[in-house]
Formats: sequence, structure tokens, C-alpha cells
Amino acid sequence: MAEEDEQLETGPPPAVPVFFLSDSTGISAETMGNAVLIQFPDLRFDRRLIPFISSVEEARRVVAILDAAARGRVTPLAFSTTAVEEVRQELLRAKCPLIDFFGMHMEQVESILGAKGIRVAARLHGMGDVKRYNARMAAVEYAIEHDDGQSMRALEKADVILVAPSRCGKTPTTMYLALQHGIFVANYPLVDEDFASAELPGPVRGLRDRCFGLTTTAARLSQVRNERRPNSRYASLEQCSYELRQAEAMYRNHRLPVINSSTKSVEEMSTVILQTLNHRE
Amino acid sequence: MAEEDEQLETGPPPAVPVFFLSDSTGISAETMGNAVLIQFPDLRFDRRLIPFISSVEEARRVVAILDAAARGRVTPLAFSTTAVEEVRQELLRAKCPLIDFFGMHMEQVESILGAKGIRVAARLHGMGDVKRYNARMAAVEYAIEHDDGQSMRALEKADVILVAPSRCGKTPTTMYLALQHGIFVANYPLVDEDFASAELPGPVRGLRDRCFGLTTTAARLSQVRNERRPNSRYASLEQCSYELRQAEAMYRNHRLPVINSSTKSVEEMSTVILQTLNHRE
Repeated sequence: MAEEDEQLETGPPPAVPVFFLSDSTGISAETMGNAVLIQFPDLRFDRRLIPFISSVEEARRVVAILDAAARGRVTPLAFSTTAVEEVRQELLRAKCPLIDFFGMHMEQVESILGAKGIRVAARLHGMGDVKRYNARMAAVEYAIEHDDGQSMRALEKADVILVAPSRCGKTPTTMYLALQHGIFVANYPLVDEDFASAELPGPVRGLRDRCFGLTTTAARLSQVRNERRPNSRYASLEQCSYELRQAEAMYRNHRLPVINSSTKSVEEMSTVILQTLNHRE
Repeated sequence: MAEEDEQLETGPPPAVPVFFLSDSTGISAETMGNAVLIQFPDLRFDRRLIPFISSVEEARRVVAILDAAARGRVTPLAFSTTAVEEVRQELLRAKCPLIDFFGMHMEQVESILGAKGIRVAARLHGMGDVKRYNARMAAVEYAIEHDDGQSMRALEKADVILVAPSRCGKTPTTMYLALQHGIFVANYPLVDEDFASAELPGPVRGLRDRCFGLTTTAARLSQVRNERRPNSRYASLEQCSYELRQAEAMYRNHRLPVINSSTKSVEEMSTVILQTLNHRE
């Protein structure tokens, strides 16, 4: 049926099979690959992660998968961050175009550094690092305890306090900063009584220097809230406009750094906050 | 003083200045760069992230920083994931070795895909994607609500339930899976009464198919717990050995997938869990 269908085909082009290959988690391979793929917004990709390829035997099984994909109608593409030389060489036998991260960068970096890379599977800073693990745990636990203004206890221990009306992106940004960067983040939701004046709410008033104000567009806030409580006053465009207008007046009044979550991902907001903290030091 | 000091120098070699350059958050540049640097465990690196380089003028300021570093005693190294052509070209003028991610990979991928990349600054899946945002938010909120067995409500909504004695890595793994992958994860801490038998605790007994058991070494668990409650029974090697032995018997008894957090990072544990879920589907 393939040939006839191909001629009649009028739908979108078929997805390009993309493989992320790694002798570790594959997070680097995914990050690298997706940084490239995002530059092709008109194409569709069918992504598959194959992590922990740690032996030549396993690499052979992966090559069989890649070769099968290469027999399909669309040329597949693989990104590999495999560091171990014999595994890398085995993967390069596949009949599938392969962006070989270590093959391309390792020698260049070795010559710049004047040192030989060990070429072993990347071990992430394992949980074996007890001090680092405990620091992150403490940050995550602090974030959980202080999510959504649940606790005002030890608010002065916060490195960062995110202030915003409900659903502007406080919680995921808080968790990201805690988990990835070990930063103590509290978040403080603005509620009805806070909108009456342009004053910072009592509990955070003395901590202005750690506060960041989040905002978004009324349309987006309304859309997000509607998913949660459809057709409520809480989700109405009017209420969302009012809350954001009052919140922004409060941020201006206290000269808080302001971040608009409608145009930024959690990672981008976190980076802006980290940069602001760094510049203050 | 530099010359004399240089001859007297007997300490460790000075750190290599490393720059991560990006027209976006720099997360890709850091991931890529660190994947390479981890291969040089004997060298020390002095890392600096410069994100959001969005214009030629900003690139010029960055080049001045790189040039200043290049005049130091140790040759610096820069990793760039800048996609915008004129910004990229400007950065390449720096007198600092630069691993130019897009310069090296873009043309190769373009020829494989038979399409032109748009070469704009990477926009991460912004918070503008309301459905995706709400899904992750729901997962993070679920994780917060179900952290440390705080709530048994809606436990059957969990995709994954992490079972383990206290301090084996449940909480950060839970948050990572929720935040990065939008997965509903509950975690269930094993306590004294659970160690009496090799039975799964009542609340999770009917949900065995979603349970993963975490374990670690007694020495590491004792070390982690000692940071929290020094010299307590809770942190004693004896107590830690007992809890892990009983927990592992329980996992075996119910044939739970087991992950050892002493040798794995949060990212690695999460990847193992995701792979296990995928293979079951």
C-alpha cells in the first residue's frame, strides 16, 4: 500500500524519527538535540530516548534499532553523548546519521586544555555527595513548606520570595530554583485584601530586598484559571485584569524586579532571578 | 608579583576560566559544556554563565570580558549555544577558544533534514503553552500534597509511588519527575511499624504495580541522617542497617523495582523510573 498512499498523501509530512543516545541518563543528548531541533519549527519529530548504553553488546542492539529506522520512509537522526570509546565506535556503525557529540568536541577541548579526557560514562554529581544532597533537600523541603504562603515561619531564611496573584507561575519556578540550584525560595500569593493598597503585605514588608514580582497577561491568567475553576469570578477576565493591575502597582511602588511569565518558561524566569541575585552580590 | 609567585607556586594548578554563552538561558550551553568538562576530573574550572546575549552590542561586551580572561595566566574556554548568526559571528571574534555549538552542528543537521534552521534564539516551551503548564502545575501540586505520605487522598491517581525509609531520596526524585516530566508521583515513607513485616503498608498495598522501592547504603543513610539529627538513634548505623534490610525484604517480597540512591543522582533515578514505565506500556 505504501506507494499508492505516498502519491495520495496530502496530510502533514511524516515525523522524523529522532534518537537520543547516551551511556548515562541522556539528559545532555536531549538538551543538545532539542536545542538544534527547536530551530526547525515546521518539522515534526518522533523522539526516543535510549539511555544507559554501557557496553558494546548494548550498543549493537541499539544499532539494530537505528538500522531498522533507517529503512523507513523518513531518514532518521540520532544525537549521541556516549563518551566510552568502544561504545561510541559501535554506534557509529549504524546506518543512521549520527551527531556524535564527543567525537566532535572532545579533541578540540583536549587540545585547548592540554589534558586528556578520561572518556568514561558521565557520572552525574551522584547522591553520594552528601553535603550537596542535604543542601538541595533542605531547599526543596523549605519550598514545600513555604509554598503558596502556607507558612510564614522562617520567611527571613528565604533567599528569594516570589510575590504574585494566584497562577502566575510561582510554584514551578520556586521548585525549579530549589531543586536545580539549592536556593531557598518562599512564595507569597497576593489575595483580595492585598489588592486594596499598593503596600507589600505585612509578612514580606521587611523583606523587600528578596522579593520578585511575577506578572502575566490578563488573557493568559484567565485561561489558566479557567482550566482550574471554569466560569468562576476568580477566572474572569475582569478579575484577572484587576489583580494584575493592582499587583503591578505594588511592584512599581516598591521597585521590585518584575518578571512576566506569559513570555517566559520556568527555566527562563529562574535564570533571570539568578542573574539578578548575582549582580547584587 | 606575578613572575616570582609563578616560580614559587607549589599549590594546585589555577582554575581554568570557563564561560557558558547563550542567547537564551544558557542551560543547553551549561549542559553541553559540563558534559565535556566532567571528562577532566583532575582540572579545576571557574565557571561563569552569561545568558540572554541578544544583540551584537551585548556580544561586544561579552567579547571584552572573554578577551580580558584570555590575557590571564590560564587559557580560558567558552561554550556557546548562540543561534542568531550576527551574534554568533561577533562572539567568534573573541581571543578565547570557543566551542561554537551551532557553528558545528547546524549545517550537518540541516543537510540531514533537508531543511533550513531558522537560527533564532531558542525559546523554551514558554509558559504560554497553557495546557502543558497546567499539566506540570497539577503534577507539582500533587507531589507537594503527597510528599512524605502527608496525604493518602487520591493515591490511586499516582503514576508512580516511591516507597522507602526516610532520607533515601524520595522527595527530590518526586519533585524532579513532577516538574520535568509532569508525572504524578506520591511518596510513601516507611516507618517503624512498617518494618515489622515484609508486607506493603496498607495504603499502598493495592497499588503495588506503581510502587518503586528506594534503597541506599547504611553508611550513607547514617551520614545523611546525622546532618539532620546528629547522634540520634534515627541516625545510628544500627538503625539505618535495620531499616534498609527490612525495606529490601519488603521490596523483594512484592517484586518491586528497586533503585539504589547511593550510586545514582536524582536525574539518573528519574531516568530509570521513566524507562521502567515506558517498557511496561
